[in-house]
Amino acid sequence: MADAANPDPPQSHPQNLPKVLILKPPPIFPHFESELSLHFHLLKAYESPLPTPEFLAAANASGVSAMLASGGYPITAADPLDHLPSLRCIVTTSAGLDHIDMQECRRRGIAVAFAGDVYSDDCADAAVGLLIDVLHRVSAGDRFVRNGAWSSQRKFPLANRLGGKRIGIVGLGSIGCRIAKRLEAFGCSILYDSRQKKPSVPYTYYSDVCELAASSDVLVICCALTDQTRHMINKEVLSALGKEGVVINIGRGPIINERELVRSLQEGEIAGAGLDVFENEPWVPEELFALDNVVLSPHIAFATREGFHDMFELVKGNLQAFFSNKPLLTPVVD
Amino acid sequence: MADAANPDPPQSHPQNLPKVLILKPPPIFPHFESELSLHFHLLKAYESPLPTPEFLAAANASGVSAMLASGGYPITAADPLDHLPSLRCIVTTSAGLDHIDMQECRRRGIAVAFAGDVYSDDCADAAVGLLIDVLHRVSAGDRFVRNGAWSSQRKFPLANRLGGKRIGIVGLGSIGCRIAKRLEAFGCSILYDSRQKKPSVPYTYYSDVCELAASSDVLVICCALTDQTRHMINKEVLSALGKEGVVINIGRGPIINERELVRSLQEGEIAGAGLDVFENEPWVPEELFALDNVVLSPHIAFATREGFHDMFELVKGNLQAFFSNKPLLTPVVD
Repeated sequence: MADAANPDPPQSHPQNLPKVLILKPPPIFPHFESELSLHFHLLKAYESPLPTPEFLAAANASGVSAMLASGGYPITAADPLDHLPSLRCIVTTSAGLDHIDMQECRRRGIAVAFAGDVYSDDCADAAVGLLIDVLHRVSAGDRFVRNGAWSSQRKFPLANRLGGKRIGIVGLGSIGCRIAKRLEAFGCSILYDSRQKKPSVPYTYYSDVCELAASSDVLVICCALTDQTRHMINKEVLSALGKEGVVINIGRGPIINERELVRSLQEGEIAGAGLDVFENEPWVPEELFALDNVVLSPHIAFATREGFHDMFELVKGNLQAFFSNKPLLTPVVD
Repeated sequence: MADAANPDPPQSHPQNLPKVLILKPPPIFPHFESELSLHFHLLKAYESPLPTPEFLAAANASGVSAMLASGGYPITAADPLDHLPSLRCIVTTSAGLDHIDMQECRRRGIAVAFAGDVYSDDCADAAVGLLIDVLHRVSAGDRFVRNGAWSSQRKFPLANRLGGKRIGIVGLGSIGCRIAKRLEAFGCSILYDSRQKKPSVPYTYYSDVCELAASSDVLVICCALTDQTRHMINKEVLSALGKEGVVINIGRGPIINERELVRSLQEGEIAGAGLDVFENEPWVPEELFALDNVVLSPHIAFATREGFHDMFELVKGNLQAFFSNKPLLTPVVD
């Protein structure tokens, strides 16, 4: 029975709550499913053995107006949009939008809300952590101690100083700006490449990523994955970065030509890499496992307890705003 | 033959260069031995099978006035000071002085030069790296990817946000101040314990380390090892830090009661630790190898290529100053 006197959390029967479709559970979902289900009637397509179109037909989902999405399920015209004629809102838990055909959403009048900068601080922290880890060989040192090599008196190679390094940030958005602010406190100088020069920042702008690489000791990739940025970090860019150069990627795997990156690392054409993302996750090129100058991370830069809680609140807020005909909290705007 | 027209580097026969005794080679020594030997006649006791007193007698070292030292060989009255009546200067490559009986040096009129703040930036970077590593599980994530667990779809636990954490710095000296400056850029608040309150810093002072721990989410140990600080981080302090607390130690191992630390970690009484130093290096308690919330580092926080080069220049400068009757560059002053 609905209890109109106690709207938050609503005590409605699930069938009376606003319907939200989920094709694949976002990473935050297992942590907040029970709270979300107090507010929304969750249609969990992934629990059904049926293919998505059949599930949608069986669940009578043609009337569904809202969907919760994430990077794990691409949103295209053929699947699922053609099967959801009433869809008007997609709330994605991702900061990147490469999994959503935005042009198709615009054409159909579907509003999209995204993670905004909920993850930006955590991603910036993770990027700095990966960079210190590569330069100071933290993970390699941990392996060295745990496998008993320290006690047996083997020598551990010297680290490289972070201070004074020229950091080339590829994509000076919400995350990139936070990385810059942090690394300034370590005595680094900041350069950047971005779609356009940002008049408000004091850092040196490069319109060409190859020139940025040639002027940098470290490239930190934190731009969006688009047709323009796919494989933007290629052989030529890595070669311009050079033998002492380090690559950090917390953006998306396909921004780097991974085969060229692996080859460059194996042949010593660059000095090291810290990678949170890969071209074909969760698959990681095995050649990297043999390298001590590489830090491998399972796409977790954004994944903190606090960030997930903030994201849950944002998802709830965006969906509630949509169902109340209020402006979305973090709409994607062109 | 000496070439007076070309004093730097001097082309003297080694026997004509000023004598510098080395009982155990400092970590920087293998990297800069050849350069140092251009300037000084190095008496390398560790290359001799003789015990130190016999070596000193055989090498006619009673006239030696300068010694290069490091943390690896304690300098006490009985060994080697009683065998070096002419010693007037010890240059140590260490920032800590716990290996030198300073009272005995003062009594004998032996000046001591130390690392000063040559290592401070690198140590501060390493401390922040260890902290991000523990909170964001960087090394654990690297293990997770390398052992294939990510591909087999096992879940990786959520990280903990650095921003907003209350960082209790134990020892707000040259390194501690640099750690504070860096962590402020991550949105952390800074508290500290030190021998005395520092009027020039804006951070909250605690005269009692237990009260500091109770008010902190993270304790970063970067004080000197003295009789007062030995085992200062004990069961009571760890208990005050609490279940969500993290300990970072880049100071000296014996500042922490290691047995209590291991027990606290095993029993979940604190949340994690990043340790660059240990009570009986290079031995590390094996119980720590089983823990995923601990990052182990083989006493390398200070050990960068750039720092070693700076240290070599400082060692050379201090020894040249001593032999020229000029003031030491980085004298230990009380």
